[in-house]
Amino acid sequence: MKNVQVRLRRRPQGMPSVEDFEIVESELAEPGEGELVVAHSYIELQPAVRLRMGTDYEPTMPLGSVPLGQAVGQVLRSRNTEFPEGTHVVVNGGWQSHSISNGEKVSALETDAVPITYHLGCLGSSGMTAYVGVNDLVRLQPGQTIVISAATGAVGSVAGQLARLKGCRVVGVAGGQAKCAFAVEEYGYSACVDHYADDFAERLAAACPDGVDVDFENVGGIVRDNVWSLMNNFGQVLVCGLISEYNRPDLVAGPGWKSALERSLTIRGFRLRDHMHRRDAFLEEATDLVARGLLKTREDITVGLTNLPEAFINMLNGGNFGKTIVQVA
Amino acid sequence: MKNVQVRLRRRPQGMPSVEDFEIVESELAEPGEGELVVAHSYIELQPAVRLRMGTDYEPTMPLGSVPLGQAVGQVLRSRNTEFPEGTHVVVNGGWQSHSISNGEKVSALETDAVPITYHLGCLGSSGMTAYVGVNDLVRLQPGQTIVISAATGAVGSVAGQLARLKGCRVVGVAGGQAKCAFAVEEYGYSACVDHYADDFAERLAAACPDGVDVDFENVGGIVRDNVWSLMNNFGQVLVCGLISEYNRPDLVAGPGWKSALERSLTIRGFRLRDHMHRRDAFLEEATDLVARGLLKTREDITVGLTNLPEAFINMLNGGNFGKTIVQVA
Repeated sequence: MKNVQVRLRRRPQGMPSVEDFEIVESELAEPGEGELVVAHSYIELQPAVRLRMGTDYEPTMPLGSVPLGQAVGQVLRSRNTEFPEGTHVVVNGGWQSHSISNGEKVSALETDAVPITYHLGCLGSSGMTAYVGVNDLVRLQPGQTIVISAATGAVGSVAGQLARLKGCRVVGVAGGQAKCAFAVEEYGYSACVDHYADDFAERLAAACPDGVDVDFENVGGIVRDNVWSLMNNFGQVLVCGLISEYNRPDLVAGPGWKSALERSLTIRGFRLRDHMHRRDAFLEEATDLVARGLLKTREDITVGLTNLPEAFINMLNGGNFGKTIVQVA
Repeated sequence: MKNVQVRLRRRPQGMPSVEDFEIVESELAEPGEGELVVAHSYIELQPAVRLRMGTDYEPTMPLGSVPLGQAVGQVLRSRNTEFPEGTHVVVNGGWQSHSISNGEKVSALETDAVPITYHLGCLGSSGMTAYVGVNDLVRLQPGQTIVISAATGAVGSVAGQLARLKGCRVVGVAGGQAKCAFAVEEYGYSACVDHYADDFAERLAAACPDGVDVDFENVGGIVRDNVWSLMNNFGQVLVCGLISEYNRPDLVAGPGWKSALERSLTIRGFRLRDHMHRRDAFLEEATDLVARGLLKTREDITVGLTNLPEAFINMLNGGNFGKTIVQVA
């Protein structure tokens, strides 16, 4: 049996190109004692994986390795009693058609409740990132204004809906009219501002008449700079992602700290891996919200593992609309 | 009776000059019902007052007004039963020889325990800023490395000693050999690095072999950038002051947020005014530490109110050595 992998062939300079990756077919190993082989049906793509492809990220991803990502699929072979053959699972399997694991960090899935792909998005690490951010890492009061950039993205769309449920004024920033309209109509944002607009700064200010209390930052760069200028005293910034900066060869400076001092602002970067103890609480709450129609999602599915590099690049360019997923078959 | 005031005559462009201030003598008003007149003996100077002299700070200090600062002195006239004539007090009196108040934010002082000027420095707002910062606004574990810039300054020297009492490795940054030696010998810093040294970056790195867990930032600019590059995962930055940036006409950029994201860093700006509920706890603890010889201080006293502008400018240039105080008489 064959395994098809997407491997990092060379380190991208700026925006990745398809030549930075290679598709490699190899013989699939047999599972050892306690191991299982999962055939991936769908693989999620995460913008932050781009960071790991550079040399300044610790630990640096070795050339020739398979980039990280959650995958959902079925157990194909098993020497692990916890996961018999045929079990539907989510696994940190990466950009390949199959993965072998010892069962750690593998979770069995119900397949009748929600589409299985939800476990890669709103019920996966994207949703959990939003959940931890909104619930644990900022203090949100009803009536406060929170700005969420990449408002229709996998993380932003969940963060926006959770913040709305907390009674906040939720203002999105997204690229283009279609995404902005969707954010308001589907996700319940109070307003969503197109960052491609010439008068973006004015529109953002108009959408935040009481200033900004929380910036749930997914984008960085110019979008961030405009939100920063609107921050209220005691404002909180959660640095969740900086997609506009991942491909820039230069180091993008941050805002001066004088305004952090004058306005008593807090900026906090975080990574989901340090908050995994919240997984059960997240899954319970988010699953319930999905069932009640209070947590909506949109997926952007590309078919074919060989098209994965292109889908990844398209996502980094903002060309995706919703959680970016690759269907293996 | 006359009152002598130092007033802001025009807004400084960059580093202030003595011409930005004027000395004005006026008739001292009689106290109204419930009011008291304090004759200032000593006035403290704070670098952050420079911020208020510009136009981008809220609220902007009006031209012709008297800059803020604590003063210690004696009640000269009183129509307030709480503070009879002759009482030694500390008052938010500003840059003038006398002040009138209604008794709010006035505290009576014991004069036999410690030198009265300590209430302007290590037992005043500088000491309390350090206390709130070290105790409430960062989480410090024994053995962690904390870097304190302006290490021998009014705030830094107290922060350094408090952090040492918590069992931290305390590394100072100061301008010049004399201050660095004093920081180690008098305040018990593990090391103190001269930021004027050509190889400052290398020396700082060598002084922090396990990286930096907490940056108690008083300086900003290049000093800050070098500390930032050494921050450990989950590192905390407390933005207490940015003295190197106050006089720069350009906006000094901050570090990029990519490293905040990759290393899960937190940056927090604060102002003492929002933490005044901690005053009693601070005074009790700090007074005890002073009495036990565990909290030392150094003062830099200029004689004569007319020399105040020069002392203020000298302080902004780093020419002071310890808490900057002006003796009125």
